Amino acid sequence: MGSGFRLKFGTVAIIVQTVFIVLFATLTEYDWRAHPVYSDPNHPSYTNDTNLAFQEDNESISHYVGRKYPPFQDVHVMIFIGFGFLMTFLRRYGYSAVSLNMFISSLLIQWAMLVRGCVYEGIFKGNKFQVRLEEMVTADFASATVLISFGAVLGRTSPLQLLIMGLIEVIVAQVNGYVCHDVLHAVDVGESMYIHAFGAYFGLAVSRVLYNKHAQSHHKGESCYHSDLFSMIGTIFLWMYWPSFNGGGSEGDEQHRAYINTYLSLCACTVITFAITALTDKKGKFTMEFIQNATLAGGVAVGTTANMPLQPYGAIIMGCVAGLISCIGYRYITEFLAEKLKIQDTCGVHNLHGMPGVLAAIAGAVMAAMATQEDWGVSLYEIFPYRAPKPDDITNEFQRQFPSVDVESGKGWSAGKQGGYQALALAVTLGIAIVSGLITGLILKIPIFDQVNDEEELFEDMMFWNVPEEEEEGKSEVELAARKYIQDKNGTQMTEKL
Amino acid sequence: MGSGFRLKFGTVAIIVQTVFIVLFATLTEYDWRAHPVYSDPNHPSYTNDTNLAFQEDNESISHYVGRKYPPFQDVHVMIFIGFGFLMTFLRRYGYSAVSLNMFISSLLIQWAMLVRGCVYEGIFKGNKFQVRLEEMVTADFASATVLISFGAVLGRTSPLQLLIMGLIEVIVAQVNGYVCHDVLHAVDVGESMYIHAFGAYFGLAVSRVLYNKHAQSHHKGESCYHSDLFSMIGTIFLWMYWPSFNGGGSEGDEQHRAYINTYLSLCACTVITFAITALTDKKGKFTMEFIQNATLAGGVAVGTTANMPLQPYGAIIMGCVAGLISCIGYRYITEFLAEKLKIQDTCGVHNLHGMPGVLAAIAGAVMAAMATQEDWGVSLYEIFPYRAPKPDDITNEFQRQFPSVDVESGKGWSAGKQGGYQALALAVTLGIAIVSGLITGLILKIPIFDQVNDEEELFEDMMFWNVPEEEEEGKSEVELAARKYIQDKNGTQMTEKL
Amino acid sequence: MGSGFRLKFGTVAIIVQTVFIVLFATLTEYDWRAHPVYSDPNHPSYTNDTNLAFQEDNESISHYVGRKYPPFQDVHVMIFIGFGFLMTFLRRYGYSAVSLNMFISSLLIQWAMLVRGCVYEGIFKGNKFQVRLEEMVTADFASATVLISFGAVLGRTSPLQLLIMGLIEVIVAQVNGYVCHDVLHAVDVGESMYIHAFGAYFGLAVSRVLYNKHAQSHHKGESCYHSDLFSMIGTIFLWMYWPSFNGGGSEGDEQHRAYINTYLSLCACTVITFAITALTDKKGKFTMEFIQNATLAGGVAVGTTANMPLQPYGAIIMGCVAGLISCIGYRYITEFLAEKLKIQDTCGVHNLHGMPGVLAAIAGAVMAAMATQEDWGVSLYEIFPYRAPKPDDITNEFQRQFPSVDVESGKGWSAGKQGGYQALALAVTLGIAIVSGLITGLILKIPIFDQVNDEEELFEDMMFWNVPEEEEEGKSEVELAARKYIQDKNGTQMTEKL
Repeated sequence: MGSGFRLKFGTVAIIVQTVFIVLFATLTEYDWRAHPVYSDPNHPSYTNDTNLAFQEDNESISHYVGRKYPPFQDVHVMIFIGFGFLMTFLRRYGYSAVSLNMFISSLLIQWAMLVRGCVYEGIFKGNKFQVRLEEMVTADFASATVLISFGAVLGRTSPLQLLIMGLIEVIVAQVNGYVCHDVLHAVDVGESMYIHAFGAYFGLAVSRVLYNKHAQSHHKGESCYHSDLFSMIGTIFLWMYWPSFNGGGSEGDEQHRAYINTYLSLCACTVITFAITALTDKKGKFTMEFIQNATLAGGVAVGTTANMPLQPYGAIIMGCVAGLISCIGYRYITEFLAEKLKIQDTCGVHNLHGMPGVLAAIAGAVMAAMATQEDWGVSLYEIFPYRAPKPDDITNEFQRQFPSVDVESGKGWSAGKQGGYQALALAVTLGIAIVSGLITGLILKIPIFDQVNDEEELFEDMMFWNVPEEEEEGKSEVELAARKYIQDKNGTQMTEKL
Repeated sequence: MGSGFRLKFGTVAIIVQTVFIVLFATLTEYDWRAHPVYSDPNHPSYTNDTNLAFQEDNESISHYVGRKYPPFQDVHVMIFIGFGFLMTFLRRYGYSAVSLNMFISSLLIQWAMLVRGCVYEGIFKGNKFQVRLEEMVTADFASATVLISFGAVLGRTSPLQLLIMGLIEVIVAQVNGYVCHDVLHAVDVGESMYIHAFGAYFGLAVSRVLYNKHAQSHHKGESCYHSDLFSMIGTIFLWMYWPSFNGGGSEGDEQHRAYINTYLSLCACTVITFAITALTDKKGKFTMEFIQNATLAGGVAVGTTANMPLQPYGAIIMGCVAGLISCIGYRYITEFLAEKLKIQDTCGVHNLHGMPGVLAAIAGAVMAAMATQEDWGVSLYEIFPYRAPKPDDITNEFQRQFPSVDVESGKGWSAGKQGGYQALALAVTLGIAIVSGLITGLILKIPIFDQVNDEEELFEDMMFWNVPEEEEEGKSEVELAARKYIQDKNGTQMTEKL
Repeated sequence: MGSGFRLKFGTVAIIVQTVFIVLFATLTEYDWRAHPVYSDPNHPSYTNDTNLAFQEDNESISHYVGRKYPPFQDVHVMIFIGFGFLMTFLRRYGYSAVSLNMFISSLLIQWAMLVRGCVYEGIFKGNKFQVRLEEMVTADFASATVLISFGAVLGRTSPLQLLIMGLIEVIVAQVNGYVCHDVLHAVDVGESMYIHAFGAYFGLAVSRVLYNKHAQSHHKGESCYHSDLFSMIGTIFLWMYWPSFNGGGSEGDEQHRAYINTYLSLCACTVITFAITALTDKKGKFTMEFIQNATLAGGVAVGTTANMPLQPYGAIIMGCVAGLISCIGYRYITEFLAEKLKIQDTCGVHNLHGMPGVLAAIAGAVMAAMATQEDWGVSLYEIFPYRAPKPDDITNEFQRQFPSVDVESGKGWSAGKQGGYQALALAVTLGIAIVSGLITGLILKIPIFDQVNDEEELFEDMMFWNVPEEEEEGKSEVELAARKYIQDKNGTQMTEKL
């Protein structure tokens, strides 16, 4: 580690945060539902909207806030407790895992709002970005993308590298999301493509560039008994609140389906994970790494189709396949990637987010290609607005049957076309993630960013943290004494192992 | 442990999960509030209900989902974090406690939906089971019953035994619930009888059959410093979210009362637990086992009466009595049961769920026997529908005063009759739980299910888990060296103790 | 510790709880939204309100409960998991931290309801205190005040002292809140003055009186590796749910702003904390104490102004300043207070709650002094009702523009006057907190309350807890053997250090 870390990290963080203040002051404002209500018609913020809110005497706003807030908090817990503690499984990297997770997310939540403002709301055209509860969810989502990539390189990067990686990745990921969603019109309610697959393959590309031979079979790259239990806190909060991740942004029956499908998929995935971890183990025993991670693959795999009418058994099948794929990944593929392709993956994000994300995308494309008005009813047009007839082709009968469908928005897409664009979005996502990840990796290798290189620096909190002394030096005073005593009496023969 | 555990457990889990897929495909469908809305009147799913939903443009569904989802997530946290971490108090059984808790619940949530479909919805008559948010809560509840029984035998069973026990217990518990609720018309809003008392006495009966003399005063049957703190995570999440357990399924003023009563009962129970644990300890010190468990008895004890007008002081008294009983149980009764009756109870579920569950049932019977229209108003008929006059006896005056009471549902039951049926439900529950528990215990003793027998197998994760090496062999490399050195130099004299 | 601790603590706790039962029975009742609905017009509880509820058929109550309950549960988690685990950072005081936190809160929640009834609802006039969901939040808030003071003296008091301190502090804090809010009309939506500043300065005053020279640089006054991770559970839950603390009690756009402002302030505060902890450290490393605490200062600092139109960038600036101040406190001020002023502060509550609370109050006074109708619209009168014109000065134009403003409540206060009263409330709060804290400290020094005095009693669970044997005696059997062996062979030379 460069000796200038102290100045560099702190200074960069303060500069970035200061820039954020300036950008927030010039580019953002409260959404009308958070504005103070201006009654003066001459006030620049006086609009029909705020006027409406005024007349409705806070009732409609209270409903909006009351309905959006609980799923937001669930997602918030997933980001800060879920991802944070999931990554504490390393025996000597718990401080970094949970704390840098918190730092990165806090920074990128702000950055995501600014970037999304530029990408989605035409800030360049002079519009201000409207901050509201829904944007708190999407900002949390945006940081999740980076946390997934963080998992791939966990223990092998400096905080400064993470900061730089995060700033870049949020921009690329938001542009990718915009292209896929707003240009290709591929839907992804739980963002399994745009967050999970993107974050995983971006992180793996970065990891490839940062390949470090010392990290291979590193004894600190493993868990200890209590670190595994801390990790389970993360696992279980992710597992429980995943329905909010996949369904928090929907409404009505779509949201209800997203909750049911995600819940059932995760249950089935968990059962299969326990079965596969035992069946494929030499001694027939369970392995915590599988339980901590593969049990969650069901949430990723059902992400793109969560709001679609999969039926309960369909959601369960999706969870089973996800658990199977993820377990196979942890058992066989992670080692293959590390040894043959030099792609190290500390948390196995390829198995938890990468492959299940691709599975989700494929399932989404297949569902889209099979969706008919007969089976899906009005949900077809709510989920795929371009499937509605073109404005000129709208019949009176259609309008009578589907009064809630916007007659202007349809493009008359066929099922096959929608399915094709869904598949195209996957390809675009993977391509952008891998290319931008490789470039980002090269940037991170610039020595100024304090790449962690030596064996004793890897997976080690002491590199960047003041660790309580007792722990640094050994387990206890007795141990210290024992260590010294053995050394004194026994010479080098015994102590080589220590 | 049989050497074939690997194949057996994994194969059974996969078979069960596969059967679930087939059953879900044939027996379940989305509730109309999760259906895609079918506009085609010729579609088999087109009904007045879905039509209604369609017309209401998702508003009513969004309200339904928005109101039911937060308490569901609270219960979900209780099941997976609450029960899971509560049981991590054993020093060498944390992996099993939190992970098998997750496995069992994931499996039984699915099973409970299928079983409930058969028991409640007449699947045999060709109806499909309607999956919706409320059924996600009841499925979580159903798994709680088994988790309580799991607590009684914790550390003394194989995963395969747990799986078999769970599949059986869910069926019996759901039938018991149906008999007590739908046949005897005994109410139990927080299911203190049907979940807590049932789960406890079922588990104790199983435990009696599986009695293992090695488990008596086993040194691994205790906690260590950090395992006690992990356990407190479970305790506190259970404690905080218990109002959602008792009140999540209610509406209006009933729900409001359930929240208030449970909250106050738990506070009072906690104060009393601290007092009793100190007063009855030889050195006057607190004991974590009491804090981890007896503080929760107030939630169980108020379960049956939570939605009744106990008044705040009534809820507080209930909590005090529960804390007292539970502490006495942990101090004196657990040991008595184990030594005299050969009923071992690892987590003390008899003290936390058994006796407080019986207390709840008795309180429910007493409240029912004292309920009058004068004091309870319309709540009397909302809580006990059979107390309403028979259809022929309904007067105009009654209808004017209670327009919301269904004039068809009353049976003219007296307060005493309702109280009697409440008491009868308790007796039925205890009888079914104990008998079915004993039978289940005998089934679990069949050698094929890998009963844990030997002393070194008990309360030990290493039996079924790959535990990180450092931990298996000793605390640290220094310790290993010390151990070896001492052995070398000192011969057998010293090392006998190690 | 006095040998009579056992009898004293338990007896006092039982007596207090018994008195609570009597007071609850005589002084409280359910709010009308939790009452059973009485249809009999002659019943004493039959009122227009309950009649209304009856007619509305539970819908309005369900809305009320559904909207208030999720933020309540978030606050509940902050109190019991958040404060509880935050304080487990001490290596040998985890049992006490998390459990006494639970005990104190459970006791004081009940006490707060009774005290608030006396202070706010005129129980002396024969009114009963109405228990409802909102009062569950305020009761949790009231216990938070004491938990903050608990943090100042953590590890240096007996449970009995905490109990006495809590009973006194709740009374004084509620009176202070009443004076500031209902007499001075100073607003404080997140109670940064009335809870955070009050709790901190009260606790510091108590701590000054209980000054113990042995506690200075005590080796058990530090963390160990895993205790730091437990502490992060508390930190993160506090951090995530803080928007509910600041906004849970509001409605409409005010609530929405409170959520947004708190969220952004905390993100910015976290970034700045990481920067400052590295920049001011000799080795340039991060320190967990800062991450665990200073990251939260953004929630305190924005507490008074959370519902005001700060704009997103304003909230971010507030968070930055809070993080800066809090870090400076942890780096320099805590030691200064302990060494120069003999004010020991185990958790650094002065840095997390004290100074940021004062900052919040100053920000509130400044915002109030700058608030204009032009910028704030109707929010001006919703947040500061006294700013509305006096009844005689209400014009038709005003009524047309602000139909929701109560024409009777205005006092025609100017911005400056409101700002002045805000500042006055801060001064009153600090004065009352410090004086009452000093007096309370003197009371706690009465020997009957078992003051912890000796060096080995400090920061040590074994004082009041049965700690598992292995932990009491040393780390493991191997260590015991090593210790003995070294002692035997080596004589005193080596073992002096042990």
